[in-house]
Amino acid sequence: MTAYQRLTEQFARIATLNEAASMLGWDAAAMMPAGGGAARGEQISTLAGLSHELLTAPAIADDLAAAEAPNDEWHAQNLHLMREAHQRASVLPRRLVEARALATSRCEMLWREARPTSDFPSVRAALEEVFALTREGAEILGETLGLSPYDALMSQYQRGIGAADVAPVFANYEQFLQTALPAAEERQRRQSHEPLPQGPYPADIQEALCRRLAQAAGLNFAHARLDRSAHPFCGGTPTDVRITTRYDEMDPLSAICGVLHETGHALYEQNLPRAFQRQPVGEAAGMATHESQSLIVEMQAVRSDAYLAYLAPLLNEAFGKPVSEAALKRRLRHVERSFIRVEADEMTYPAHVILRFRLEQALISGDLAVADLPGAWNDGFTSLLGITPPDDRQGCLQDIHWYDGLVGYFPSYTLGAMAAAQLMAAARQALPELDEGLRRGDLSSLVTWLSARIHNNGSRLGFNELLQEATGEKLNPAAFERHLTARYLR
Amino acid sequence: MTAYQRLTEQFARIATLNEAASMLGWDAAAMMPAGGGAARGEQISTLAGLSHELLTAPAIADDLAAAEAPNDEWHAQNLHLMREAHQRASVLPRRLVEARALATSRCEMLWREARPTSDFPSVRAALEEVFALTREGAEILGETLGLSPYDALMSQYQRGIGAADVAPVFANYEQFLQTALPAAEERQRRQSHEPLPQGPYPADIQEALCRRLAQAAGLNFAHARLDRSAHPFCGGTPTDVRITTRYDEMDPLSAICGVLHETGHALYEQNLPRAFQRQPVGEAAGMATHESQSLIVEMQAVRSDAYLAYLAPLLNEAFGKPVSEAALKRRLRHVERSFIRVEADEMTYPAHVILRFRLEQALISGDLAVADLPGAWNDGFTSLLGITPPDDRQGCLQDIHWYDGLVGYFPSYTLGAMAAAQLMAAARQALPELDEGLRRGDLSSLVTWLSARIHNNGSRLGFNELLQEATGEKLNPAAFERHLTARYLR
Repeated sequence: MTAYQRLTEQFARIATLNEAASMLGWDAAAMMPAGGGAARGEQISTLAGLSHELLTAPAIADDLAAAEAPNDEWHAQNLHLMREAHQRASVLPRRLVEARALATSRCEMLWREARPTSDFPSVRAALEEVFALTREGAEILGETLGLSPYDALMSQYQRGIGAADVAPVFANYEQFLQTALPAAEERQRRQSHEPLPQGPYPADIQEALCRRLAQAAGLNFAHARLDRSAHPFCGGTPTDVRITTRYDEMDPLSAICGVLHETGHALYEQNLPRAFQRQPVGEAAGMATHESQSLIVEMQAVRSDAYLAYLAPLLNEAFGKPVSEAALKRRLRHVERSFIRVEADEMTYPAHVILRFRLEQALISGDLAVADLPGAWNDGFTSLLGITPPDDRQGCLQDIHWYDGLVGYFPSYTLGAMAAAQLMAAARQALPELDEGLRRGDLSSLVTWLSARIHNNGSRLGFNELLQEATGEKLNPAAFERHLTARYLR
Repeated sequence: MTAYQRLTEQFARIATLNEAASMLGWDAAAMMPAGGGAARGEQISTLAGLSHELLTAPAIADDLAAAEAPNDEWHAQNLHLMREAHQRASVLPRRLVEARALATSRCEMLWREARPTSDFPSVRAALEEVFALTREGAEILGETLGLSPYDALMSQYQRGIGAADVAPVFANYEQFLQTALPAAEERQRRQSHEPLPQGPYPADIQEALCRRLAQAAGLNFAHARLDRSAHPFCGGTPTDVRITTRYDEMDPLSAICGVLHETGHALYEQNLPRAFQRQPVGEAAGMATHESQSLIVEMQAVRSDAYLAYLAPLLNEAFGKPVSEAALKRRLRHVERSFIRVEADEMTYPAHVILRFRLEQALISGDLAVADLPGAWNDGFTSLLGITPPDDRQGCLQDIHWYDGLVGYFPSYTLGAMAAAQLMAAARQALPELDEGLRRGDLSSLVTWLSARIHNNGSRLGFNELLQEATGEKLNPAAFERHLTARYLR
């Protein structure tokens, strides 16, 4: 066996362990009785520890040093990604990893108490420690990878995209929003406001409908499950994807959109390149790319005229209530300035992300002190959206990310939304039959197109390279702005 | 840290890995979409491989050699069990383990085809290989543990019990059966045969009822789930037990008895000593002991007059059908000579086990050739139960065990049934309030008694030592025979 062959075996073993951990994570969220929590935490952390031991083993380091770049683009990229994964796992001193795990777990706990009472001071010191340790790790990681500390953090979630790529795209969008948002609001004021029929919409019927919609969208249930959990997610493994949602009996659209969002993630996983299963190059290309796949389904396909024309009669039939296309459009295509990111519409959502992107850069560079975060948040929010959060609960305390040590993640949401619009525009050009399928709830032509250009590529290419191959250019916010203009301003 | 402390950490880590594998096994049976099977097999085998690596690591061997026997019965037994587990895992050459895994998987596959067509010749050669490799392993294991090859196999499932303990108990029972079975049949002929009302008994109502009965029997659902699977089992971990069953809409008693059987297993797991969680001494004492706990619930408590008086009106109410106590007794306390072990009643069941116990000893010793198994089976069966299997499907092809390499397991079923009767007799003496609780479906006084004497002891004692402490004597088939005499002959 060559060194590279040994590496592929070891990385497959590591990936298999990570699969086991992923299934246990799904179970914890969707199935586990409350009393199983302590043991489950230990099971998952034992698997993570073993996975880390395998990845940093001296034999791996020796093989990585000895392995020759295979004469094939896929295998060459695979070896490159193995080296990077090994470096990432090896470079941080154990003391720092453990201190950070302790600090984030402590901070997250304090945050859970601080948020409902809007008590930022009670979590401030803990958050300072999280940022100090995150910065220390980012500096080490950045030095190793040849990146700035913040870019090193970003690269954990989406390889190959840095602040310099994102900043002009976001600046461009900020400008767009200054005129587009008031115009969209003005137009909305002149429109009729047909409401959805009053609930309840029974959860069991919602679930059956969601399953049907996900299947029509292309999800293969011989390799997937749909279950319930407090926080919707897509987990599991490519041949056994587990998506979850929650059902609100007064609002069927929340679960329907949620399930179709997770279906977008699931389709990506199901269509990853089988030949590189459990190899680094066979994995999804990153969080921004992943989000582009959930959002192209949820925002581009499902909220299209064609799909809503399919959905309205289906809802009528399932719930025995008169749901009109107009009511669906009013609910699913409505802009509104609001304080909470997860409740934001697709036009204002990027403003929430832009704010966080700027603040977390400043927090990592040290230009902004944690103590000054609430004020900086409110100033930034007011400047972006023209309204000021009345308290920190609706401001800098709303998201778990920073308190849990996730820094550099937020841009993925908006990069994904923009990429989704860019991919949809290219798909529309290539697929004249697209709308006809959507009118039957059938996304197969879109999914086939995406599979060939995104899913089947695994991690062979980065975020911008995938867009370049699929659409002829790297990320360009113009497609997203054109999409919003068409949907909200005409 | 002392060597023993390091060992407790490593064994906890191994147990945690095994917990993860157990949850994945449950998921595969109860939740997994069909398409997840291949990946799941690899996940479980990767975990098993890592667990084996950890158990046989040189550092463990060094610590086992250096560790001093702690000055405490529990810890001393824990160290003893660690040494034994390490020996068992280390002693078999890798070549043999792999050859056996291959042979059993091949043989099991052939058996799945051979059974429905009653085609023993098609699986004969594969079964010969399984027995040859099992014998080779048993000889090595026996030499290491100071046991005969067959006793070494038995000890994998129930430590401390060998053929010499079992043979006289079984011979005694064989004699009992020669008069008891005809007498019970004769008595049955004179009884009324009140049938259960015709089905269907909807599965959802059965499930709700089973959950209620399991809870009343003491199962804590904050640490347990009840789900459906093709083959009922009890899996998971002590703080997160997973039991499963299947529902037959024409027969509610099959699921009810099945769930209460698994509840008996689950109660054992839930009440294992917490202070020794994930240590060898904190585990259940073995399969015969485990079976005694499922059978004391299913056979002793649930089929008692008192419990059936509670169950009949509950069934009436749940299904809106007139289910009488007499019909329950007729269904749940009925003896009948039959060919299939898993369908046998409690009186004839031991005959099925005795046959297998004798045949598998002869197959391991070489006194019986695999080619002669069908004839020996039918002769033995006829001698024990007076009827002759019409084909091998209803004879030596019916059970998966041997074809899957499980040899030495069968005695556990009957040892468990006998121990259950012996424990119940002692519990009845100690607990005058027992029947009063059973009349309310409440097993708490029995479970409390069993917890203190069996569950809470983990593996501190062996099968016979547990019985000795709980009942004043080691296994004695007299209690089981008295139980059968009272139930079927008076």
